[in-house]
Amino acid sequence: MLKIAVLGVGRIGKMHAENIAAHPRASLAGVFDVHGPSAKEVSQKLGVKQYESAEAVFASGDVDAVLIATSTPTHADLLEQAIAAGKPVLCEKPIDLSLERVNACAARIAGTSIPIMLGFVRRFDTGHRAVRNAIASGAIGDLHQVIITSRDPGMAPASYIEVSGGIFRDMTIHDFDMARFILGEDVTEVSATGSRLVDPELMAKCADYDTVTVVLKTASGKQCIINNSRRAVYGYDQRVEALGSGGMAISENRPLNGMRLYSEQFTDQAAPLMNFFIERYADAFAAEISAFVDAVEKGAPPEVGFEDGRQALILAEAAMLSISEGRSVNTNEIG
Amino acid sequence: MLKIAVLGVGRIGKMHAENIAAHPRASLAGVFDVHGPSAKEVSQKLGVKQYESAEAVFASGDVDAVLIATSTPTHADLLEQAIAAGKPVLCEKPIDLSLERVNACAARIAGTSIPIMLGFVRRFDTGHRAVRNAIASGAIGDLHQVIITSRDPGMAPASYIEVSGGIFRDMTIHDFDMARFILGEDVTEVSATGSRLVDPELMAKCADYDTVTVVLKTASGKQCIINNSRRAVYGYDQRVEALGSGGMAISENRPLNGMRLYSEQFTDQAAPLMNFFIERYADAFAAEISAFVDAVEKGAPPEVGFEDGRQALILAEAAMLSISEGRSVNTNEIG
Amino acid sequence: MLKIAVLGVGRIGKMHAENIAAHPRASLAGVFDVHGPSAKEVSQKLGVKQYESAEAVFASGDVDAVLIATSTPTHADLLEQAIAAGKPVLCEKPIDLSLERVNACAARIAGTSIPIMLGFVRRFDTGHRAVRNAIASGAIGDLHQVIITSRDPGMAPASYIEVSGGIFRDMTIHDFDMARFILGEDVTEVSATGSRLVDPELMAKCADYDTVTVVLKTASGKQCIINNSRRAVYGYDQRVEALGSGGMAISENRPLNGMRLYSEQFTDQAAPLMNFFIERYADAFAAEISAFVDAVEKGAPPEVGFEDGRQALILAEAAMLSISEGRSVNTNEIG
Amino acid sequence: MLKIAVLGVGRIGKMHAENIAAHPRASLAGVFDVHGPSAKEVSQKLGVKQYESAEAVFASGDVDAVLIATSTPTHADLLEQAIAAGKPVLCEKPIDLSLERVNACAARIAGTSIPIMLGFVRRFDTGHRAVRNAIASGAIGDLHQVIITSRDPGMAPASYIEVSGGIFRDMTIHDFDMARFILGEDVTEVSATGSRLVDPELMAKCADYDTVTVVLKTASGKQCIINNSRRAVYGYDQRVEALGSGGMAISENRPLNGMRLYSEQFTDQAAPLMNFFIERYADAFAAEISAFVDAVEKGAPPEVGFEDGRQALILAEAAMLSISEGRSVNTNEIG
Repeated sequence: MLKIAVLGVGRIGKMHAENIAAHPRASLAGVFDVHGPSAKEVSQKLGVKQYESAEAVFASGDVDAVLIATSTPTHADLLEQAIAAGKPVLCEKPIDLSLERVNACAARIAGTSIPIMLGFVRRFDTGHRAVRNAIASGAIGDLHQVIITSRDPGMAPASYIEVSGGIFRDMTIHDFDMARFILGEDVTEVSATGSRLVDPELMAKCADYDTVTVVLKTASGKQCIINNSRRAVYGYDQRVEALGSGGMAISENRPLNGMRLYSEQFTDQAAPLMNFFIERYADAFAAEISAFVDAVEKGAPPEVGFEDGRQALILAEAAMLSISEGRSVNTNEIG
Repeated sequence: MLKIAVLGVGRIGKMHAENIAAHPRASLAGVFDVHGPSAKEVSQKLGVKQYESAEAVFASGDVDAVLIATSTPTHADLLEQAIAAGKPVLCEKPIDLSLERVNACAARIAGTSIPIMLGFVRRFDTGHRAVRNAIASGAIGDLHQVIITSRDPGMAPASYIEVSGGIFRDMTIHDFDMARFILGEDVTEVSATGSRLVDPELMAKCADYDTVTVVLKTASGKQCIINNSRRAVYGYDQRVEALGSGGMAISENRPLNGMRLYSEQFTDQAAPLMNFFIERYADAFAAEISAFVDAVEKGAPPEVGFEDGRQALILAEAAMLSISEGRSVNTNEIG
Repeated sequence: MLKIAVLGVGRIGKMHAENIAAHPRASLAGVFDVHGPSAKEVSQKLGVKQYESAEAVFASGDVDAVLIATSTPTHADLLEQAIAAGKPVLCEKPIDLSLERVNACAARIAGTSIPIMLGFVRRFDTGHRAVRNAIASGAIGDLHQVIITSRDPGMAPASYIEVSGGIFRDMTIHDFDMARFILGEDVTEVSATGSRLVDPELMAKCADYDTVTVVLKTASGKQCIINNSRRAVYGYDQRVEALGSGGMAISENRPLNGMRLYSEQFTDQAAPLMNFFIERYADAFAAEISAFVDAVEKGAPPEVGFEDGRQALILAEAAMLSISEGRSVNTNEIG
Repeated sequence: MLKIAVLGVGRIGKMHAENIAAHPRASLAGVFDVHGPSAKEVSQKLGVKQYESAEAVFASGDVDAVLIATSTPTHADLLEQAIAAGKPVLCEKPIDLSLERVNACAARIAGTSIPIMLGFVRRFDTGHRAVRNAIASGAIGDLHQVIITSRDPGMAPASYIEVSGGIFRDMTIHDFDMARFILGEDVTEVSATGSRLVDPELMAKCADYDTVTVVLKTASGKQCIINNSRRAVYGYDQRVEALGSGGMAISENRPLNGMRLYSEQFTDQAAPLMNFFIERYADAFAAEISAFVDAVEKGAPPEVGFEDGRQALILAEAAMLSISEGRSVNTNEIG
């Protein structure tokens, strides 16, 4: 049993703690949160220790590994401390909003063989993964074009938007990683378009966008189109489509239930989509823990690592530059 | 070019006349209808001769073959006359509502080599036919169970219901033929259940049913479930499902168009189903003409012949007997 | 927290034990199994007490309620003992294969106000339940016709088939309960058809069937068609369709993942269906525990009770009689 | 009856001629083709006059209107002649490959009130049109983002590619018009990406692309993503998706038939897509003739006119410029 402690038990951290507790080859070693009452509630419900500080976690002999689900600005520091303490890490994305900080972190942890895994949970979705497997197995031939549709069911609160680092860093970041996962090849060119249609005032205030399209291209010419909206009223829209020389694979959306309704006005009506990521990716979050446990047990590099987090951030910066200059940006220009 | 005359140009006959006129290997030789103005309108629109009587059609040297789309009680007489005149016939179903009359007709035309085709148009639907082909090709292994769902979008007028011969002869008759087409084996047992739910008063008055289930069984044990309703508000529901030892094939419904709608309340909503048979089976009606032209050109027995019409009627009688006696009926007990 | 002990920790009992342990308002009070090692394994993994006997469970002050997941022949006895001990019960179906035994059990527990819930898990499936809600809310008007398609992915072992009590009691029993759940009205007539197509030899040896169709009818004329096969190679086929005067609702199947594949030969191909009931009804099994906890907490009769188990068995007996006599059977003739 | 002559009876012209002949309010006034035998064949089959020259058609008092389906380089000349002769015109797209020539043509026909309709047939597809109607009716709120997926089933012959004017003018041109149809607002910015993946050699030789993505933006910020491939092995992929503030509408693909296949390896497999445009848009081509007849009868401007053809060409030129300069292009920079 791998004893994993969870740092940060907000909505996501709490869910991770429960998944660890339920995992057949892992156990929950304890929790910590700067907001004591949150940590207390989770520790009591799951019957585990509440640590008084992150340092105490890193120092504990009862902790084999840590999961970092604290607020974004603390990720890089905690990650560095965990590595210094010799604890394998599963860190929620992003590593940091600043590429400079990420690069500094990379320098500090360079050469470590301690497993570091990034929480790009969508890689563990059975549908998205089946698309990738279809490519890997040759079922759709050579890959030509990818379309990632990723739309939130509704705007995050203004307080979050204001500090999120912008749509490319708070939302598209997942799709940048998905693009890399599906393309299986480095992206060389980035071309982005942004609009303010859902909440023009807030977006203008934050110099941000709520409706964006990003076109990525690899050296061999493979294309990936990412389209995002901060609000799709029909639910959390999460689709991945891959066109190849021999066919196409699409990971479709998931409605709340399997019922279809027919009436005088319509047929085949389904329920709204699962809403939101904790529901939609519930199975993927559990599979992510398994992948982390596997990596630590084998001492192998996790399937999605630190460099994947850094590369996604580079694509986000390239997209921002592309919009501001109205041109295609080469990823070599960044980072 | 096969010169085909159409007898009876009501809604169905008119559609047949247009299909014949548009057919690459057939031409419309003329039309006749006891209601002169109907025949006149069609003859003028399509630029063909209006015959003064059915006899004139049969006597004409300009007519190679006839399509009978007159009222049901005239079918058997006209069919006999056509055969006597040596004209191949495509006759709308049913041959007659009375099995006795059909048997008499069979006796009179016994031994003829003149092609006689019955208008069981659903056999020519690309979806239903693909199900049959999936069985024939072995794609689903040995056939075990068939489900035919067949529901009208709304009640026919009371005036029609009162003389239709009952639901098994006016509506299920198509499904009995489809069952035979899909089963590919004689039906030996019939068990039927009827309810009066759509229009209880009219149904009671006519000693008829508006909601029925019929279970058919062949000698080898293959089962076919037919379910009918005289009113499905979402449109003309026409599905055929076949379960085999190696898989399943389903012919699905067709909505009016390919648009899917998503909103805050629902996802993936399609349009109502095509409504009614002339729209739903438009392609099949055209393919039926082709099959008739093929059969006449080759002098071969048509794919669906007189005996198919008689067998469907036997199943209808068996279903009626099953309901009245509350038991499974062997088809040997009929006809 | 409701402390629930689990009797019988085979495949289903173990799954129930895990669901109880993970439930926010329940805790696992311990387990018992006549096969000691099985109980030991589960007790160790979940960190709970292993009881030495069912009697010890019933006598324990640490047990608030019991879940019976032992072999079928022990259900009725254990249920009676639980009630005698004042423990609320969630009992896996069926209560017993013999209607006589069930009736005796009913007599012994008559008048008890202790909650007894039957494990007809499909009632808790979100799709099937949405169909029922669509009926209850009036979304499809008055109910006319129900079609329940329920096919196992493959034959159970011969050793199971030989003692299962026949397809109506081992498999259709779930569909009989689903029919009652969806119809919302007592069934008065039962008409069944059986074939031996999947494994004719074994079926003949057991005087059983592997492919059956049962048509149920209520006093008001509502119809329900159940079709079963002991082997659908494409997976566990579980569909419920309800036609009403105002529309239709269908609970569709669930494939293993959301990927669709396109190639030169086909389009829109989905994965095989979830296989088998523990996967397909995973959410429903968890919801079932919640419903039981709710009922016990409120002291209210569970949504699905002892009498539901008895009624399903009556329909199974009626179906057997219908096949053997080739006629429609009135449920008054049974029990 | 509107008497329409068809100029050019290759594959498309012949289909138009048949649709006109079958139209209830139009008749085929005759045909002309520079390749005499083609014209002769069609004229004989449909029983209409074969004209000896385009001039003879324009001079004829028996011709009310003309449909131009000749080779692209002749479109503008014939269109000008038709207008000079006072004949309403339905002209296949494009007007010309050269924007200069189109502008010259526009100058020559300026001020005419004679109906001129462009053959952007996809506007008449029931699914695509339903998407537009969903927007117009407010069913999906304010429009935010459009995705047009448009992929040919296979490469056109090299001989065609070499003179086609490039993918934006031979293929995307339809999608540019569809974008304008759906957006309902002028496009101001164009950003394009092109790859050579299907047939890199031929594409390089022609300085063309076989895999392209174009992102369009309107003044108000609405986005439209067009993705094209010259080869989708699963058939002719034609989808239109519109995201709005209140929902989403998608026009889905059409398989060859309605059959779904299930096996041990997969479920819900559909047939390949309709292949190619004459099959896929058969209904739309017929509806296009109706729209033309309507416009001429009412003397009203057709729904899709000369300027629509010119605007689509401007977008094609903008896309080419965008690729060559690796930047977003403002439509004001063109034409």
